[in-house]
Amino acid sequence: MTEKNLQILFANRPKGWVDQSAFEQVETPLPDLADGQVLVRNIYLSVDPYMRGRMNDAKSYAAGFELGQPLQGGVVGQIAKSRNPDLQEGQYVSGMLGWERYSLSDGKGLQPVDPALGPLSYYLGVLGMPGLTAYVGLLDIGKAKEGDTVFVSAASGAVGSVVGQIAKIKGCRAVGSAGTDDKVAYITDELGFDAAFNYKTADSLGSGLRETCPDGIDVYFENVGGPMLDAVLPRLRYQGRIALCGMISQYNLERPEPVYNLISLLVSRASIQGFIVSDHWDRLPAFVADMSGWLREGKVKYREDVMDGLENAPAAFIRMLKGENFGKQLVKLGEE
Amino acid sequence: MTEKNLQILFANRPKGWVDQSAFEQVETPLPDLADGQVLVRNIYLSVDPYMRGRMNDAKSYAAGFELGQPLQGGVVGQIAKSRNPDLQEGQYVSGMLGWERYSLSDGKGLQPVDPALGPLSYYLGVLGMPGLTAYVGLLDIGKAKEGDTVFVSAASGAVGSVVGQIAKIKGCRAVGSAGTDDKVAYITDELGFDAAFNYKTADSLGSGLRETCPDGIDVYFENVGGPMLDAVLPRLRYQGRIALCGMISQYNLERPEPVYNLISLLVSRASIQGFIVSDHWDRLPAFVADMSGWLREGKVKYREDVMDGLENAPAAFIRMLKGENFGKQLVKLGEE
Repeated sequence: MTEKNLQILFANRPKGWVDQSAFEQVETPLPDLADGQVLVRNIYLSVDPYMRGRMNDAKSYAAGFELGQPLQGGVVGQIAKSRNPDLQEGQYVSGMLGWERYSLSDGKGLQPVDPALGPLSYYLGVLGMPGLTAYVGLLDIGKAKEGDTVFVSAASGAVGSVVGQIAKIKGCRAVGSAGTDDKVAYITDELGFDAAFNYKTADSLGSGLRETCPDGIDVYFENVGGPMLDAVLPRLRYQGRIALCGMISQYNLERPEPVYNLISLLVSRASIQGFIVSDHWDRLPAFVADMSGWLREGKVKYREDVMDGLENAPAAFIRMLKGENFGKQLVKLGEE
Repeated sequence: MTEKNLQILFANRPKGWVDQSAFEQVETPLPDLADGQVLVRNIYLSVDPYMRGRMNDAKSYAAGFELGQPLQGGVVGQIAKSRNPDLQEGQYVSGMLGWERYSLSDGKGLQPVDPALGPLSYYLGVLGMPGLTAYVGLLDIGKAKEGDTVFVSAASGAVGSVVGQIAKIKGCRAVGSAGTDDKVAYITDELGFDAAFNYKTADSLGSGLRETCPDGIDVYFENVGGPMLDAVLPRLRYQGRIALCGMISQYNLERPEPVYNLISLLVSRASIQGFIVSDHWDRLPAFVADMSGWLREGKVKYREDVMDGLENAPAAFIRMLKGENFGKQLVKLGEE
């Protein structure tokens, strides 16, 4: 291993939309290992909406990215060198690591990954954090139950696509919105949602919701925020629940968009509950047991959108924020 | 009883702020009683913020007022005539009746009232619907617990004043906002709130909240909506709860004011839950038992603002909407 390391550093804090100037690519020597440390060869990197929040200076739920340091994200990799007795060379792991070919780690927070249960990359998606987010948000926060109408925005994405499929498994009516006709067709024809609409071409968000959810909405799994939230509020049914997972439409705005219709929460005795998946790791075993079964039985389908090469990680991140990906956005950093 | 009846009819649906043109006063003959009916001589009438919502045509949680019919509200009165074996002449009752001197009723929804437990008028306030609203909203919806910081807007009002006092009884820090310095002094000096501010004269709502809730807010009992809600959101603590009881600042606006800071719900894993007291009548016995005890022990103080004469009910309603009342707004219609 005479290789050098390649890293993507956080170079400039963006205002508004992120562009390439936020990133800087550097070549560095591979680090030496101290006792207890391992060197992970990173194979897949996940780029996710919440990372935009970590680029801001403001209080957020995850610590901000540090300027001049590698950005961080979910990674699946393989132990390349180990001076830690608990982690063997050759073993596959997942964890929060850097945007870099090799990461130094003391082993804390690294989870063993079993390639027998599913492809390695699934541990960054349907078997990982996005899948758990869908599971916890729909079932624990949204308390979806048989017969409910569940609406999810960004429904073709890594989280939304799983939300709708779990909703169907649980006997709910599943409805989604997405930003292209291809994605809308994918949601209904391949994933089995009962209805979906293109939020960019609908006459209005309100009419899209009226047509696809004529009897109102029991659970809204909120990924986007802003005008979509405002359109959903008056359509909530009695004791409706909004599981607030993210607000991707708002992350790149210098000032968030207004919401006007909160009084609907009063009229419908409804609720909004914000949640972060990292508060719910205790649900991981139940989730992995359920989800690996659903995947085996073909009840959950999953799509990935993989870009090749660490140097393309900024481009992958930017296209994901713009909704140009189709399926879970990943970056492949090296061979499996 | 050769008296005539006096009634206040709903004459015109207001747009924006309510004025006298919404009301019409008429003299009508006293009705004859059919079998099973009673005639109630109304003594006190309650005017409350939610009535503004019932004046609109839109979907709301209570049925709209009908044009040409008497407005309705909470009333305490005395059975003047009875052809109902369950209700005796001379007995005191409370219920939803008309804005009128005498109301015809089939007895359904009339609750007996015990003048020994408190003044008759208290059954329209601290021992009635506003008191139960405070109790349910703070304890069941807001889940306030010892050590929490509880902030309540409209804190000198019929609901808010009780919220803060129950919060103190439960070991919380109680903070309120109100619209005059007199009300602010009343909240802290007489009711025992830990802090309060005048939302009209504070540098900003944000600075008022920063000074009075320096460690953030665990429970916000929301009575006003709009900019106050927006100022509270970023100050919510981890897993903070907003019990959404009303939005009085919004009822007279043709378009509600915007709220921008909902992403704070995500950052703080916080929630907003709308509620309506009429869903919670099952809590009435526990509430009356607790509250009559607290009143006897002097732990809850209560203030009323009584206008005399049914003909002044519209004026009482209008001043209550403007926040010009000080204490629970009542109209006295007749002698006890």
